[in-house]
Amino acid sequence: MSHNSFGHLFRTTTFGESHGPAIGCVVDGTPPGISLNEVDIQTYLDQRKPGQSRHTTQRKESDTVEIMSGVMDGITTGAPIGLLIRNEDQRSKDYDDIKDQFRPGHADVTYTMKYGIRDHRGGGRSSARETAMRVASGAVARKVIDHLVEGGMSIRGALVQMGTHTVDRNNWDWSVVDSNPFWCPDARMAATWEQYLDEIRKQGSSVGAVIEVHASNVPAGLGAPIYGKLDGDLAAAMMSINAVKGVEIGEGMNAAALRGEENADQMRMQGDNIGFLSNHAGGILGGISNGQDVVVRFAVKPTSSILTPVQSVDAGGNDVDVSTKGRHDPCVGIRAVPVGEAMMACVLADHLMRHKAQCG
Amino acid sequence: MSHNSFGHLFRTTTFGESHGPAIGCVVDGTPPGISLNEVDIQTYLDQRKPGQSRHTTQRKESDTVEIMSGVMDGITTGAPIGLLIRNEDQRSKDYDDIKDQFRPGHADVTYTMKYGIRDHRGGGRSSARETAMRVASGAVARKVIDHLVEGGMSIRGALVQMGTHTVDRNNWDWSVVDSNPFWCPDARMAATWEQYLDEIRKQGSSVGAVIEVHASNVPAGLGAPIYGKLDGDLAAAMMSINAVKGVEIGEGMNAAALRGEENADQMRMQGDNIGFLSNHAGGILGGISNGQDVVVRFAVKPTSSILTPVQSVDAGGNDVDVSTKGRHDPCVGIRAVPVGEAMMACVLADHLMRHKAQCG
Amino acid sequence: MSHNSFGHLFRTTTFGESHGPAIGCVVDGTPPGISLNEVDIQTYLDQRKPGQSRHTTQRKESDTVEIMSGVMDGITTGAPIGLLIRNEDQRSKDYDDIKDQFRPGHADVTYTMKYGIRDHRGGGRSSARETAMRVASGAVARKVIDHLVEGGMSIRGALVQMGTHTVDRNNWDWSVVDSNPFWCPDARMAATWEQYLDEIRKQGSSVGAVIEVHASNVPAGLGAPIYGKLDGDLAAAMMSINAVKGVEIGEGMNAAALRGEENADQMRMQGDNIGFLSNHAGGILGGISNGQDVVVRFAVKPTSSILTPVQSVDAGGNDVDVSTKGRHDPCVGIRAVPVGEAMMACVLADHLMRHKAQCG
Amino acid sequence: MSHNSFGHLFRTTTFGESHGPAIGCVVDGTPPGISLNEVDIQTYLDQRKPGQSRHTTQRKESDTVEIMSGVMDGITTGAPIGLLIRNEDQRSKDYDDIKDQFRPGHADVTYTMKYGIRDHRGGGRSSARETAMRVASGAVARKVIDHLVEGGMSIRGALVQMGTHTVDRNNWDWSVVDSNPFWCPDARMAATWEQYLDEIRKQGSSVGAVIEVHASNVPAGLGAPIYGKLDGDLAAAMMSINAVKGVEIGEGMNAAALRGEENADQMRMQGDNIGFLSNHAGGILGGISNGQDVVVRFAVKPTSSILTPVQSVDAGGNDVDVSTKGRHDPCVGIRAVPVGEAMMACVLADHLMRHKAQCG
Repeated sequence: MSHNSFGHLFRTTTFGESHGPAIGCVVDGTPPGISLNEVDIQTYLDQRKPGQSRHTTQRKESDTVEIMSGVMDGITTGAPIGLLIRNEDQRSKDYDDIKDQFRPGHADVTYTMKYGIRDHRGGGRSSARETAMRVASGAVARKVIDHLVEGGMSIRGALVQMGTHTVDRNNWDWSVVDSNPFWCPDARMAATWEQYLDEIRKQGSSVGAVIEVHASNVPAGLGAPIYGKLDGDLAAAMMSINAVKGVEIGEGMNAAALRGEENADQMRMQGDNIGFLSNHAGGILGGISNGQDVVVRFAVKPTSSILTPVQSVDAGGNDVDVSTKGRHDPCVGIRAVPVGEAMMACVLADHLMRHKAQCG
Repeated sequence: MSHNSFGHLFRTTTFGESHGPAIGCVVDGTPPGISLNEVDIQTYLDQRKPGQSRHTTQRKESDTVEIMSGVMDGITTGAPIGLLIRNEDQRSKDYDDIKDQFRPGHADVTYTMKYGIRDHRGGGRSSARETAMRVASGAVARKVIDHLVEGGMSIRGALVQMGTHTVDRNNWDWSVVDSNPFWCPDARMAATWEQYLDEIRKQGSSVGAVIEVHASNVPAGLGAPIYGKLDGDLAAAMMSINAVKGVEIGEGMNAAALRGEENADQMRMQGDNIGFLSNHAGGILGGISNGQDVVVRFAVKPTSSILTPVQSVDAGGNDVDVSTKGRHDPCVGIRAVPVGEAMMACVLADHLMRHKAQCG
Repeated sequence: MSHNSFGHLFRTTTFGESHGPAIGCVVDGTPPGISLNEVDIQTYLDQRKPGQSRHTTQRKESDTVEIMSGVMDGITTGAPIGLLIRNEDQRSKDYDDIKDQFRPGHADVTYTMKYGIRDHRGGGRSSARETAMRVASGAVARKVIDHLVEGGMSIRGALVQMGTHTVDRNNWDWSVVDSNPFWCPDARMAATWEQYLDEIRKQGSSVGAVIEVHASNVPAGLGAPIYGKLDGDLAAAMMSINAVKGVEIGEGMNAAALRGEENADQMRMQGDNIGFLSNHAGGILGGISNGQDVVVRFAVKPTSSILTPVQSVDAGGNDVDVSTKGRHDPCVGIRAVPVGEAMMACVLADHLMRHKAQCG
Repeated sequence: MSHNSFGHLFRTTTFGESHGPAIGCVVDGTPPGISLNEVDIQTYLDQRKPGQSRHTTQRKESDTVEIMSGVMDGITTGAPIGLLIRNEDQRSKDYDDIKDQFRPGHADVTYTMKYGIRDHRGGGRSSARETAMRVASGAVARKVIDHLVEGGMSIRGALVQMGTHTVDRNNWDWSVVDSNPFWCPDARMAATWEQYLDEIRKQGSSVGAVIEVHASNVPAGLGAPIYGKLDGDLAAAMMSINAVKGVEIGEGMNAAALRGEENADQMRMQGDNIGFLSNHAGGILGGISNGQDVVVRFAVKPTSSILTPVQSVDAGGNDVDVSTKGRHDPCVGIRAVPVGEAMMACVLADHLMRHKAQCG
């Protein structure tokens, strides 16, 4: 058991705080013989890194990853892959004001309750900065998936809701996702969000979001009953991302409102294969993939670090009003998109190996 | 790694199929010196067992549990607790009709895809029958919790939505939950559901539901960053229950629509303790409990076994229309309430022990 | 983490005490599609069961195993296999005399120190009776091995030392092992042991032993650096058997006395394959199998339950002299042979699956 | 499951190869509030580092450790502790001669068999260099132990056999261990070894050794039946050290030759406590510590990298004679002493936390 590891056969252990010398991880279980270099990983890190538009935190981090082990001459050896990113832009002083104050909705109060000590500098271990290592591990997972699945998989995420504004699924266009700073698949909604988020930011407020991740070309048979279900692992993976409060597979919470015949993904033979006529299940039945797209959604709450003053207490037991300056994301959900993709990749890589072990 | 185990320090491993000789589990890690007997467990099993009203499956199972080990003279010894329930009412013949047919929305197609073999009798391992062992383990977990937490915890579940009908939270009354067959906390809604479900059943259809589980008197500090978060474990636990498609903590998916100042649970000192002015977080911040009620919700899809004919295929690769007779739950969510409570208890017992190990 | 489980992908969880209603286990991870029935398991249980000659405990147990799950129509389904053996010959009264006394060298004193409670009836959980479930699991492991390895493996154990008498390796004959009650591969030594052990038993004493287990046709490449080494897992597996105090791979402790050129297993090409000219390594280099026979040895201490009075204390804190009547093995090492074989089989089945996951 | 992690609640994951940019580890589970700095760790690393006398490899590594996370202002926060050591003296060219040759007794042949690829430079991942991270983790474990156990523990190792020369236990003096380059507790034997090892080295040969590690002031009750036994975990831990071929607890393999009354550690009350009159058990009964010194021994085989030519094959399938130049330890067992101590510390820290979780 490790509180800082996830996955079983494809397993990642992370370490590092927002304002320590570095963050890093160990990726264990990677098959040998896969080409892998820093660029493969950096590409995905660059998607997540802060400061790329005015809509995300202005902290400047190059997030340059270094491969410390497990790769020789650009090929994985089967040994654990150590990855390291040095922290650069650590303005610890920014946090002196709130050193002894608790931000409502933030983990600093529960860290103190649990450990009797907390790293107040940028949230310490609870900072979203840790998610960089998930993205790095996810990049390795994608290589593993391409190695194991003929034709590879396509794993893509999008922001489908920002605050009260939800994308119109009729306008869904994956090609639009990369051409706006929000990962929005609906070009018109992207324009709306731009105005909306500017306003939120100016007000010193923040807003929540919903992210949706699709994996295509997932082989049928991944996942395992009963406590090794693919959806169970995806739920844990997504819920472990900072600020996530809800996870849905396929119809998700809406499944409650449906009747059996509405929710059933009916089948017809399509040549020699089983064809599903819909995908309410999100590609998973009984915890096992059915060959359709795996579809996961998760909700990210609004950033708790806001300028708007809120009632709180300090470490000395006094009532205070807290207003957080620092450099924060008005909608932290935006940068959660590549993290959600990465977690999807890691879970699928793990289950590919688990399936091979028992049924391969 | 075990696909049939959950929990770490308080750990349960289950086995058994719907129509095999028995189902059972091993509960490992229980502290010594706790009073425990069959009645402690049977009480909770009786809440879950089928055939208690016309609204659940008419399969008749006494679900009599036998303690095989780990208890001497009514006291736990610290050794693993083996629990066994013999299956009784196995009408395997009921399933002969669908032996080679796949029910849309059911796990039988994915089991076949994965294993190349499936136990068609009542769903085999994928049957909700397995959840009896979760309830049994949850009963042990409650004893562990009472042993470790002064004053014990209160862990209660309720059905808050059936199909399109949602309870009115202004009418919420925990004392009503036990006096209707639906675990409904809203007496008026219970009456509505009665009519509604009769209709659904008569139509040979089924309907989904949402369950909400509350744990009170949870000590602050349970859970652990980053991949051992309390909410991450709860998400995995609830998603592992049959037919669950979505899990929410506190505000859940709705958190996306909120702004930072709306979602913040503001704080004020209440005597020597921190008092929270709201509970949008569902009692968990940064993966760690804050002392408020832990609140989890999950959606259960409608039963896939319905009389209404739906398009499907058979094992021979032919198009067929499937209509399931058998004895099924028109709203399987009802019997998921005690299962959700049990999973909450198991996760909290596990985290109590994990917290004690590192910070106790 | 579970204190009562072993293995990772082929994973066994056991429960049960010497004098409770039953002992059992859950074998998880078995591939689907393997033929398996009770006879496959019973065959090995019968080798271990007590009371087969005057040289082992006279407790009479038929050790009849029942498969509770995971098998349909004689074929594994991939679901966890629950196995149960009812206890029959429980003369709990035999232990009333020593209810409050600690036997020197026995676990009853440390169980009391740890748990504050102990099951004095036949050692409770610490009884060698638990090893029946290892043998049962080992029988399943052998089927898994035969399913995964072309030509299967041969996994055989022998007693190579009883007290001060060691077999002559020049007389080693595997075919002799089954024709004496000691698993002795040296016919002449078997005769010596017969006299020797009669004498030990008459004196109310006991004696230790060394068991050696060989696995042939083990594919090269099983095991994994650094903490998943095949020999590391074998060491843990053998040391977990009751009364074991030492474990050796290949040359074992004697390797310390050798020089580099003596200990090196030199190589020459034999056709297209690498041929080793000796097997000091016991088939494992750097934690990974090299295709040679895997050879493990372990020492079992003399049974602590002896008639000869020894100085001890009781639970009330008084000095006492203890003399154990009951029904005990004068050389518990004899019945450890099939247990050692079973643990070898379980570890190899697990590593076959682990290897397939990463490198298959 | 991770092949590169060990421990459960106190858990270490290592990465890095002999000739890569760095080696490192993540130590997870450390309680918060413990003082820890680089010096605490460096002290133990300096004991293990190469090139300290003519009797060990002449590779020059400062082995300077950097704490990357988990510590704030010199105090552990409960977050994972990342540790990094940059490699410095990497003469990869030294290995060009043997790039395609397999050293008999070395892991390079099995790595190739398993992974189809190997890092020939200094053994890559199989290098004893990895043990530096065990020593680093062990230093943290000692701090955890001192935090949890009143009065701390004393964990000390000694070399008790080098080749055919064994220490005289009547001359055992712990204070001598630090004053000779061999960790020898017998001053006279240290002198003998000096001559002996010079001779071995001049001959281009190598020799094995036996290490013994004692832990004093170990609380009774650590360890857990059945597969979480303290001795089982110690066996796995020691066997995972490079070149180890045998592990013994207390009497070890010699227990086989004893009779019940000889092996029994008899007991008498000593005031209010149970006093043991001997320690054949090595402080562990039934897998649980009894409060006596925990005593473990392990045998290290002679280094396989020797100048003496031995018969082998190369990667191309040709017979060759191999003679390894490079910089090697004539008795690698010497540097295994602090590694054995570290593993003992890690296992005990883990079990202290495990015991607290269930029985604390």
